[in-house]
Amino acid sequence: MARFMDVHHGMVGITDQQLREAHEADVAIQHEEGVTFEHAWADPADGVVYCLSDAPDADAVRRVHQRAGHPADEIHPVPLTV
Amino acid sequence: MARFMDVHHGMVGITDQQLREAHEADVAIQHEEGVTFEHAWADPADGVVYCLSDAPDADAVRRVHQRAGHPADEIHPVPLTV
Repeated sequence: MARFMDVHHGMVGITDQQLREAHEADVAIQHEEGVTFEHAWADPADGVVYCLSDAPDADAVRRVHQRAGHPADEIHPVPLTV
Repeated sequence: MARFMDVHHGMVGITDQQLREAHEADVAIQHEEGVTFEHAWADPADGVVYCLSDAPDADAVRRVHQRAGHPADEIHPVPLTV
């Protein structure tokens, strides 16, 4: 398992409810790919969403987000954490 | 207080020790700006570092990182969290 930070752009105006529903859609299927989404943070003004997850690889993160209907624009392994 | 995600680019090859030293440099002065840096995540391959903080405003985050010697390239308020 490794840790990943993925980024979604173009989410200007995202609401708290939309963020929660998107997260729940990920969580509902994440076990099929061995992924655990831990947190998401959204900046509605700039339209950026950051998601932190544990996953076997970046493709597993990519597949969950894609199948849940909100493909990620960037997926970064973040092996270093403070 | 608000929550912020800031991003540093151009950090290709950053090591665990460098990330820790940078974080400690922030933490050493953060109280002067009322900022609390909570976590940082680094992708050494793509050279991206994400920092999560609580702060009175984005300028306070900007000042701490700048004074600590590693100015942020982006600072996003992230009022929505899951």
